Amino acid sequence: MRNSSTDSGVSQTVIDELIHGIKPASDEWRQRARQRLDTLTKPLGSLGGLEDIAAQVVAIRGAQFCESFSKAVYVFAADHGVTEEGVSAYPREVTRQMVLNFLSEGAAINVLARKHGVALHVVDVGVDWDFGAIPGLLHRKVRSSTRNMLREAAMSEDEVEKALSVGYQLGDEAAAAGHTMIAIGEMGIGNTTAASAVTCAVTGAAAKLATGKGTGVDPVAYANKVRVVEAAVGKHFDSSTTVPPVEILRRVGGLEIAAMAGLMLAGASHSLVVVLDGFISTAAAALAVGMAPNTRDYLIAGHCSEEPGHRILLDHLRLMPVLSLGMRLGEGTGAVLAMPVIESALALYHQMATFSSAGVSGATS
Amino acid sequence: MRNSSTDSGVSQTVIDELIHGIKPASDEWRQRARQRLDTLTKPLGSLGGLEDIAAQVVAIRGAQFCESFSKAVYVFAADHGVTEEGVSAYPREVTRQMVLNFLSEGAAINVLARKHGVALHVVDVGVDWDFGAIPGLLHRKVRSSTRNMLREAAMSEDEVEKALSVGYQLGDEAAAAGHTMIAIGEMGIGNTTAASAVTCAVTGAAAKLATGKGTGVDPVAYANKVRVVEAAVGKHFDSSTTVPPVEILRRVGGLEIAAMAGLMLAGASHSLVVVLDGFISTAAAALAVGMAPNTRDYLIAGHCSEEPGHRILLDHLRLMPVLSLGMRLGEGTGAVLAMPVIESALALYHQMATFSSAGVSGATS
Repeated sequence: MRNSSTDSGVSQTVIDELIHGIKPASDEWRQRARQRLDTLTKPLGSLGGLEDIAAQVVAIRGAQFCESFSKAVYVFAADHGVTEEGVSAYPREVTRQMVLNFLSEGAAINVLARKHGVALHVVDVGVDWDFGAIPGLLHRKVRSSTRNMLREAAMSEDEVEKALSVGYQLGDEAAAAGHTMIAIGEMGIGNTTAASAVTCAVTGAAAKLATGKGTGVDPVAYANKVRVVEAAVGKHFDSSTTVPPVEILRRVGGLEIAAMAGLMLAGASHSLVVVLDGFISTAAAALAVGMAPNTRDYLIAGHCSEEPGHRILLDHLRLMPVLSLGMRLGEGTGAVLAMPVIESALALYHQMATFSSAGVSGATS
Repeated sequence: MRNSSTDSGVSQTVIDELIHGIKPASDEWRQRARQRLDTLTKPLGSLGGLEDIAAQVVAIRGAQFCESFSKAVYVFAADHGVTEEGVSAYPREVTRQMVLNFLSEGAAINVLARKHGVALHVVDVGVDWDFGAIPGLLHRKVRSSTRNMLREAAMSEDEVEKALSVGYQLGDEAAAAGHTMIAIGEMGIGNTTAASAVTCAVTGAAAKLATGKGTGVDPVAYANKVRVVEAAVGKHFDSSTTVPPVEILRRVGGLEIAAMAGLMLAGASHSLVVVLDGFISTAAAALAVGMAPNTRDYLIAGHCSEEPGHRILLDHLRLMPVLSLGMRLGEGTGAVLAMPVIESALALYHQMATFSSAGVSGATS
């Protein structure tokens, strides 16, 4: 039995521990970075978004030199009870098949992580399959699949706390291992449906606008998916009551979404650069930022996917995506692909000559 | 004296040599690539633009395995007579100062080329400065600066032929040296003015729409720049006559723009992957494609810059930029920054498991 609880039902003590110690990134260092950028041998502002990235990362890392990064990507896998409603183009067992594909190095995220020197961690936080003691997998299963959010809350209070904690602990371990930049991705058949419901609950967007084709449902299945999102949102929320982010997560989120949010909170508390992937990852970010607004300072949006709800969430969070290649794969692929661009921004920041050191004339106007 | 000449005044024999041997990229290999992409363990089409890039590069390289590339970037430097008209925020000597900055490794392109393993070649094709025998620079000066296009043609027939040939020969040398992917950039105070005039002449766009702020002119200088572009286009072209691309180049282009176009033509003839940089680079591409339409098959647009004329040219060429980070620096920076994304697309293409090899279920719908 709980002694302390909010109206969300989740213990306030648990939430306080998760959001404790998340400070804003350093304004002083952001200013210093902007000043240095303006002395480099290039027209003012001509590196565009790369200058924003460099200034943000310097603000995150402060006095720590940040030209090279120890990088990791976390892929959280879980199943979703709502797949009973026929919302995905792929059967549920694809979640576990793809986990096995990650472990045998055959998936897109394996290729990109290898190519860009990023340590890959695959986490079972809720796959509906017993992997036994299979090596290479982080066994953190909270339960096998969420419940069907169309009938009941996706998770119990205890389950959502545990799933948040799975991510948070991995964030602590990432910082202890010396990682300075982390990408956060997922695998979970049905999870665009959960992310759409989260988007509606967080932003007030209509289900039709926040729902996309996921992995590629046909028009009839798409219409059904919109109906499912609308019904789930209608069942769990009414417009007259404000529901705390953690309770949105519990009712219509997912085990992997909770773990991702937990990792984001831990990443922010350790001043790591946190690179978001696609729609699901950004839905987790919207919840983490709802819990602890300073978290936003540590987030870089790796890309903008084809899912219409992703753009809604990026606008809600006021994040500019690094890439816009129409990807819609998840697994952390968009986040890892953005990493060489982010690292390039910092290399330019640290290595370029200044006007005075290079003897180049400034602008005349 | 010339025996054979087109109405452009440039020898048809010279043009024939430049466009000789540029075949379309392989449709057969493009189809094979598309088929393979659809067998990989990901939802159909879910890698978005990365799938288009992979299919294009496979079509370019055909039977040659294209997972890793020998990469080079060529930065062509030249001055512009039109700077007499006050069109740039920076004085003309910045062209030569930046060339020296390239040679001492302090510019943005140095940082990015180092980071991404790209061989950097700096080419003086028309800088208004005697560099003597300074090492590290490719001495290919055709003349010191173009003429002022507001008063006369920027180049003579002989000069434009020579400048095209400078680029073309470097393309031959790149292929002989085993390079398989080349980025094409520039440095030239005043060259956005030339590129805007080229854009108007090639696409019929109004000067106001095709002219941007370049390195950052103020509103008064911007209005002057638009007037200069409009006057130059009005002087050299009338809407009733179709002017060949090489003659557009001669009248309102630049020595570096000609050399870039020459390199693109040679790159296409050697089946190299040619990555465009920003506005100037894409203006050269529009002329190269005008001369030999098959050249387009070999071009990848590295990014879309802040210059409004760049978007007009990308639409004209039907090219989708890899990056859109609001950069406006030139030097090949946007092209080199796109290279890790392009290489990632090919790594995914070659290394991902297939549905059957990984035992993953396909879509049910």
